[in-house]
Amino acid sequence: MEIYVVSDIGGTQIRVESYDAGSLNPINQKKIPTQAKGQLPVDRLIKLIQEIKENHTIKAIAVAAPGFLDPDLGIVYEAPNIPGWENYPLRKILEDVFNIPIFLGNDANLAALGEWKFGAGIGHSNLLYLTISTGIGSGAILNNNLLLGHKGLAGEFGHVTVLPGGPMCGCGKQGHIEAIASGTGILNYVNEQISAGRTTILRKLEKITGKDVSQAAKDGDGLAIEAYNRAGYYLGIALANFLHMLNPSIVIFGGGVSSSGELLFEPMRKSLEERLISPAYLDGLSFTMAQLGDDVGLKGALALLVTKMTSNLLV
Amino acid sequence: MEIYVVSDIGGTQIRVESYDAGSLNPINQKKIPTQAKGQLPVDRLIKLIQEIKENHTIKAIAVAAPGFLDPDLGIVYEAPNIPGWENYPLRKILEDVFNIPIFLGNDANLAALGEWKFGAGIGHSNLLYLTISTGIGSGAILNNNLLLGHKGLAGEFGHVTVLPGGPMCGCGKQGHIEAIASGTGILNYVNEQISAGRTTILRKLEKITGKDVSQAAKDGDGLAIEAYNRAGYYLGIALANFLHMLNPSIVIFGGGVSSSGELLFEPMRKSLEERLISPAYLDGLSFTMAQLGDDVGLKGALALLVTKMTSNLLV
Repeated sequence: MEIYVVSDIGGTQIRVESYDAGSLNPINQKKIPTQAKGQLPVDRLIKLIQEIKENHTIKAIAVAAPGFLDPDLGIVYEAPNIPGWENYPLRKILEDVFNIPIFLGNDANLAALGEWKFGAGIGHSNLLYLTISTGIGSGAILNNNLLLGHKGLAGEFGHVTVLPGGPMCGCGKQGHIEAIASGTGILNYVNEQISAGRTTILRKLEKITGKDVSQAAKDGDGLAIEAYNRAGYYLGIALANFLHMLNPSIVIFGGGVSSSGELLFEPMRKSLEERLISPAYLDGLSFTMAQLGDDVGLKGALALLVTKMTSNLLV
Repeated sequence: MEIYVVSDIGGTQIRVESYDAGSLNPINQKKIPTQAKGQLPVDRLIKLIQEIKENHTIKAIAVAAPGFLDPDLGIVYEAPNIPGWENYPLRKILEDVFNIPIFLGNDANLAALGEWKFGAGIGHSNLLYLTISTGIGSGAILNNNLLLGHKGLAGEFGHVTVLPGGPMCGCGKQGHIEAIASGTGILNYVNEQISAGRTTILRKLEKITGKDVSQAAKDGDGLAIEAYNRAGYYLGIALANFLHMLNPSIVIFGGGVSSSGELLFEPMRKSLEERLISPAYLDGLSFTMAQLGDDVGLKGALALLVTKMTSNLLV
């Protein structure tokens, strides 16, 4: 049988899945740790693809990878959690092994594409996807095209400045929405306030997790509620920016912090509504949760692959 | 001869231009004040189109209009400087008179389209256009598509928050880049500082204009230079946001404030470079001045018309 193989490579895990290239029905899925002593991540990826191939013929492969990459050139500029992936010609390496079409995309961009083609965003031509967990991953579909920009670096919505001079972001710059509204941003704020002497039920914990803050907020803890209000307030500012710029018909939220629900979304909506230059931006706009869960990278890679193999119009 | 007619409607002037529908060579251009006693602006527009028609046959009309509008529905939601244009079915009115295809677009979006098709942006697939004058008008081309969004309200880059709680914007909200870096924003800052007792050569003037501030800055006036530095600093923050989100290959600047040149652009570039999460966003990126001058709205409307009449792929 002719199959498609897709992979989602993260700092922790490499996942691969095979699909019938005709029906697009899934055949098999496998995952392994990304890193192992004495083996390069790319060799582990190649071996896993060869395993999942079985006796089938691979027609094309698509890979979702983290960090900065140029999908046209097939080069990963920088993948913070994968040792050695700097200006790394991932596509060329895979092409040399498999000798078939290889497609590459940033994992968050492909997640947006996956939700658009197979998930919460089906039928929407203008979609914004935000996954809020340790950091903020993001991507957009505009006029049924994946937003990539000149070098494929577009869609970094987490690195929009909402508070000049504000907290340090994971990227090394200050005041980005990721530095405030991500799980890391929320935890940093709570820890800073505790260091500054604030009263909170969280103080008794040795190491505070996002779940602790969420539970404390539900239990009425003032600091925990304030941390969510602050995250939601700035998220509303960022979202107003995004709506003014892109006017999507759907915003899809994924990630652990989004699952805190109204703790985050209520202050977000309030701040958003206060800042919109016209209520028309809310006409026909849905806010919804992501549907594809852990498979979003694989489904996104499949969406890329199908699009590339069947049409030149999109992506 | 079959002709195209385009119009650019502003609060002050209505301009129309006719083109040979085959060669796209311009035939004639006329302009009149938008408002006159006892006449509706739309009646003045219709009369002007009928005049410029002469003995030709109009094949299609495209109109660039200010304010919020839905190009698909052909409705102007709100055009602040044109009395009576609220939820105004402009396309339907023109269709009923002329009985030919009528296309409608926001003037700033069409300006971006005009520069892309006929001006400084030829050959670029991902373009950002910012015209900085009294306000900030803007539009973008992404993957060779005009950025419109779900209801045609996208592209409002001037209403991105760069300073929460900052100065009041013309739109009634606070802290937008337009409120700081537009001509109005710069003048407001200078006037505030003068009221607060700051020393400046501008103090002796009865009413300060943008040209006065620009000249004073060139003459070494501390407050005037500071006003440009401040505008440039926040423009750099906004621009970093735009590059992270859209990764364009060209940014085109129009408008009177942009013609202040390095007074604005030097602090802008410094602030931008400090904030980019990767220098890769500057790879292959040009900053350039708009080329179409006062004709940009007309050329943008022509670009819309040609695109609509010859293809379904774009816009």
